[in-house]
Amino acid sequence: MQETELLIENLRDFILREVEPLAEKIDREDWYPRDLVRKMGELGYLDPMGNGLSLYQTCLILEELAKVSGSVALIQDAQGELVTEPIRKFSNNDVVDELSSGKIIGGFGLSEPCCGSDAKSIKTKAEKDGGGWRITGEKMWTTQGLYADVFLIIAKADEGLSAFLVRKSDCLKTEKIEVMGNRGTGTAHLFLEGCWTDQKIGNLGKGWEVAKYALTIGRVAISAISIGLAEGSIQEALDWARQREVMSQLLINYQGIRWYIADVMSKLLAVKSLLKDASVTLSDLSVSSLKLFSSNVSQEAVDVALQIMGGMGYAKGTKTERAYRDVRLTRIGEGTDEVQKNIIGKYLKENHRSTQFF
Amino acid sequence: MQETELLIENLRDFILREVEPLAEKIDREDWYPRDLVRKMGELGYLDPMGNGLSLYQTCLILEELAKVSGSVALIQDAQGELVTEPIRKFSNNDVVDELSSGKIIGGFGLSEPCCGSDAKSIKTKAEKDGGGWRITGEKMWTTQGLYADVFLIIAKADEGLSAFLVRKSDCLKTEKIEVMGNRGTGTAHLFLEGCWTDQKIGNLGKGWEVAKYALTIGRVAISAISIGLAEGSIQEALDWARQREVMSQLLINYQGIRWYIADVMSKLLAVKSLLKDASVTLSDLSVSSLKLFSSNVSQEAVDVALQIMGGMGYAKGTKTERAYRDVRLTRIGEGTDEVQKNIIGKYLKENHRSTQFF
Amino acid sequence: MQETELLIENLRDFILREVEPLAEKIDREDWYPRDLVRKMGELGYLDPMGNGLSLYQTCLILEELAKVSGSVALIQDAQGELVTEPIRKFSNNDVVDELSSGKIIGGFGLSEPCCGSDAKSIKTKAEKDGGGWRITGEKMWTTQGLYADVFLIIAKADEGLSAFLVRKSDCLKTEKIEVMGNRGTGTAHLFLEGCWTDQKIGNLGKGWEVAKYALTIGRVAISAISIGLAEGSIQEALDWARQREVMSQLLINYQGIRWYIADVMSKLLAVKSLLKDASVTLSDLSVSSLKLFSSNVSQEAVDVALQIMGGMGYAKGTKTERAYRDVRLTRIGEGTDEVQKNIIGKYLKENHRSTQFF
Amino acid sequence: MQETELLIENLRDFILREVEPLAEKIDREDWYPRDLVRKMGELGYLDPMGNGLSLYQTCLILEELAKVSGSVALIQDAQGELVTEPIRKFSNNDVVDELSSGKIIGGFGLSEPCCGSDAKSIKTKAEKDGGGWRITGEKMWTTQGLYADVFLIIAKADEGLSAFLVRKSDCLKTEKIEVMGNRGTGTAHLFLEGCWTDQKIGNLGKGWEVAKYALTIGRVAISAISIGLAEGSIQEALDWARQREVMSQLLINYQGIRWYIADVMSKLLAVKSLLKDASVTLSDLSVSSLKLFSSNVSQEAVDVALQIMGGMGYAKGTKTERAYRDVRLTRIGEGTDEVQKNIIGKYLKENHRSTQFF
Repeated sequence: MQETELLIENLRDFILREVEPLAEKIDREDWYPRDLVRKMGELGYLDPMGNGLSLYQTCLILEELAKVSGSVALIQDAQGELVTEPIRKFSNNDVVDELSSGKIIGGFGLSEPCCGSDAKSIKTKAEKDGGGWRITGEKMWTTQGLYADVFLIIAKADEGLSAFLVRKSDCLKTEKIEVMGNRGTGTAHLFLEGCWTDQKIGNLGKGWEVAKYALTIGRVAISAISIGLAEGSIQEALDWARQREVMSQLLINYQGIRWYIADVMSKLLAVKSLLKDASVTLSDLSVSSLKLFSSNVSQEAVDVALQIMGGMGYAKGTKTERAYRDVRLTRIGEGTDEVQKNIIGKYLKENHRSTQFF
Repeated sequence: MQETELLIENLRDFILREVEPLAEKIDREDWYPRDLVRKMGELGYLDPMGNGLSLYQTCLILEELAKVSGSVALIQDAQGELVTEPIRKFSNNDVVDELSSGKIIGGFGLSEPCCGSDAKSIKTKAEKDGGGWRITGEKMWTTQGLYADVFLIIAKADEGLSAFLVRKSDCLKTEKIEVMGNRGTGTAHLFLEGCWTDQKIGNLGKGWEVAKYALTIGRVAISAISIGLAEGSIQEALDWARQREVMSQLLINYQGIRWYIADVMSKLLAVKSLLKDASVTLSDLSVSSLKLFSSNVSQEAVDVALQIMGGMGYAKGTKTERAYRDVRLTRIGEGTDEVQKNIIGKYLKENHRSTQFF
Repeated sequence: MQETELLIENLRDFILREVEPLAEKIDREDWYPRDLVRKMGELGYLDPMGNGLSLYQTCLILEELAKVSGSVALIQDAQGELVTEPIRKFSNNDVVDELSSGKIIGGFGLSEPCCGSDAKSIKTKAEKDGGGWRITGEKMWTTQGLYADVFLIIAKADEGLSAFLVRKSDCLKTEKIEVMGNRGTGTAHLFLEGCWTDQKIGNLGKGWEVAKYALTIGRVAISAISIGLAEGSIQEALDWARQREVMSQLLINYQGIRWYIADVMSKLLAVKSLLKDASVTLSDLSVSSLKLFSSNVSQEAVDVALQIMGGMGYAKGTKTERAYRDVRLTRIGEGTDEVQKNIIGKYLKENHRSTQFF
Repeated sequence: MQETELLIENLRDFILREVEPLAEKIDREDWYPRDLVRKMGELGYLDPMGNGLSLYQTCLILEELAKVSGSVALIQDAQGELVTEPIRKFSNNDVVDELSSGKIIGGFGLSEPCCGSDAKSIKTKAEKDGGGWRITGEKMWTTQGLYADVFLIIAKADEGLSAFLVRKSDCLKTEKIEVMGNRGTGTAHLFLEGCWTDQKIGNLGKGWEVAKYALTIGRVAISAISIGLAEGSIQEALDWARQREVMSQLLINYQGIRWYIADVMSKLLAVKSLLKDASVTLSDLSVSSLKLFSSNVSQEAVDVALQIMGGMGYAKGTKTERAYRDVRLTRIGEGTDEVQKNIIGKYLKENHRSTQFF
């Protein structure tokens, strides 16, 4: 626990010095902070699980990053939890070290234009060719896609869904997708036109295992991001409420304002407890519950913060204005609210006397 | 009623031809559509109440505009309901014709940096000087402020709060405030450094009456804008849900999705009925209730639309992405949620057996 | 309008004298107020539409009754809108006069044990027998069922779903269903064992038209009941908040408390506007929206009232304690929330550019 | 952990045999189950903390009891957490053994008619008289008050707020308060007319410490009760949804229904994680957050369960109908929502950079 506190303290220092000054530029200019990623890699923040930290500790890092920049947190998540960690778990591919240190950038390719993250509908094909495979198809919403050197691609091989490592080359075109928030993360549409690779990740036909692991870790990670966004905004709003006078009273002295914050923070505290539990059990039920509830509560918290800040929260230049747009992604990315409700609903239909719930 | 339908039909035509093609540019480039404003003036859309239409009919126009562009709707509101109509009601100033036709642009100056729209805290002064007054102070969040030729300014004169018409000149500096949504509307911070005017609007000491009238009309108007934003987004989401397949089913065929929409649309229908009533009675209670509830329901509706559209609703280029940012203003502008709750709460405290409620 | 005000004034007088003193007894003893029903009949309150009032005016009566007793309001609804009015509309049966005057009591039999109010699943049969029919089957949740002299029964004849008038006799057994709220209304499970009748209501095979009409009117009526329950409770809570001190302050002087009420009352005002519109258009969309939203808002309002009253609102003897149980029915009876969402969702799926919404 | 599981298993068996058969009678007849309390005492369920269990384990017991009977759970809470445990902690009074074994019944007297649980307004006096004190005043909402043999009374002595043990005698009159839910728990209004006692609990002038401890433990305990009520209802609703057909489909097969449950259960899982944490730290912030959020989520869960069960959930005889009334207390008892929001709001105002939150 002490170790964790030290980690967080050092991290806060780093964030203040290196992340905060870039946060607005990343958002306004839709600018990918390549050097910052390298520094994060050198300090071990890019791939904490590869450096001996638990997923929960990784989440604390994400939370801190997101308090200042949702985009930098999402970059960490994409590089560390969606790409590096799954590759390490399912292979002994050397690329892991390069990804971990930030020397190269990675992108995760699961979702497709037609159908979101529905595994059964994946159309990208992997056709046997010599000692390797030719990958053909499209992937969408890939974070860091514009800047990635390697891609973890889920495709249909003869043996079934399989995971492959595909390097950037002329056969792989990317197209920018401009989005409302979490800007500067290089979200891209990928076009793979027969890209050749001889590197599979995990066994052929077991691609869903790889994807599932990435999604599970990723859902916990994005929950931590949502929490950080909420906390950063509420802090900004509290600072504001403590110095802003309305009708001869500090905002914080209005009961209605305090109740707004109290209400949403009580829920956030519950989410933080669930994060601690779900990041250990990693059960479908707890991960989906966490993902669903954390993103909704966090959106609510940022909304409350913005409302308290009024026009100021609506104007460019505040953390809350940015967080308002950033947090909205967390109900969509890594499986929408609806995907999580389907998972929980299915679980309850089948295990309605489960000990985890009852 | 037939007349209204004809008006709306012509308007829809106009919007399709002239507004829709500009909507994205206005938002992305924070670009004020000066020519469009002139055209709207010529066709009578800029100042419907000056052209014999009721406030309710004006709201129908705002609703249609907001379905396509929250910014253009807000420009209409600022020019027509916040500036032109109050000036006409409280004076016979010639400027009304120029404003009505869009030849010149107007800005409403009530809110100040210190204190939002709290009338008692207004610091801007009007000091008697010859046959006129010198106005000194700051105003904030003035829509069209960057482009306005004349300003309706609420200031403290010896006789009490009073309204004045101030023309743009060197003594009046403006500073751009960049905001999340409703971009391209020229939101500005105004600095008045002893601007001279001999034109008061309404009686000296009766400035609050003018401000109150502008706010009352303006609250109804911004409610209509919020409704239009909601409807435009829900329409886009319905179009999407009717053609988008997920797991081999059109989105619209999922009961959960239909229930999302049904739930929020039932509330929106209630808001639309209240708009009809409140725009006639103009009572504090009904106007504040309308403003509070319409902006919240509309935010909820746009949020539902965005969730249904998923990544697509989060990406630039959809009406819903824009509306998500635009609609958030409606809970802040023209008196926040909290101002409305204070008004309603005070009313109920004092009139708890009122016939309007009970 | 003046006429309506007079009606309401007389009614309020009647309610104070005749209804309020019985309200608690009706609830606590699950006691059906037979004499009161007769008096209401004599004064024209039992069947306002038969006495020349509009459905909207009828709703104002229901609202007033429900402020004091949800049970008495529900009795009015069952007798007047679910039974008397549909029989009058689809037949010239003499029974209408007896029902209208309260000489006899009527029950509406649509729902069945198996399947709620799903028309397609109706199992009750009407078999031709001589100049009439023998009705066999079960009906459930029939308000006034325990005390009714005649029943409007929807059953399957050779020609399809048809409506019949069935008189109470040995062949028709009733069983009490004890419920949480709206007690004393004689809710019953009916067992029809070949009951003979020669009185059809409307044409054979057109029973759904009769049922649909009763449901449409009934949904508007129960919406009015929910609104009355909300208003009665909020009034009681306001009275309480104006005299109850907590920490040396009257409750009403707490901003948080005023905001609770303001928030819910703004929605209730919207519902009241929608009631006015929907009771005239009677379109599926507006009626289902009204039913769905009014019952939910009203439940929320009563909940707020109870919370403000604290332990007192939880204790027997307050109007709010009763209303809390009564109002919960309004989201279930006359078609659940879910039935309304299905109707609205279907409408939007099929008419997504409808002028009523957009 | 194994030990806990065994405890719960034995407990479930006990509940099935001894509690479930009485649950409806307790509610309908407002009947206090004196013998059951004795049995619970003998088996150690009445005072788990006196038998070496943690507060968290005690909460698991409360959760199980509440799944079947909110009233029995509340009795456990009143006897064990509000009376026995505080007396043990602040004194070595022999009465603890009698209370722990269920030989005698205890009541906690803090709230007063004037002012709820506002400590500063306590009017009950303790006047020095010989080797003891004479206690005079009124207490309200005392669970088990009608049946209690001893009372833990908070009163104003010369030294300040102090806690005393007062035995039932002629000087202490009780009056029944009939309530909507948690019936059969003997809620009473106490009138103390100079009751003599020589037993103080804790130091004179330190009565608030005793009360605060009882409230802290009690808030965690009532949170566990609310969770149990929620789980019991959702289980009943799931059982119903798995066998009830509507329009030729089992209810559970409707996506909308599954989403209702999934949504509320994701929140409940978060609450359960927070319960685990808060029952250990016992910090004001976590306890008030738990109390506020658990009671609201649980009310929502029971409401969802009732809605799924439709008329059946509204009819007497289902667990859910009872839980709907029982769970409503949890937002009022042991400090209302508003008290918790005041505590959290104050904390955030003063510690807005606290590590517990941020």
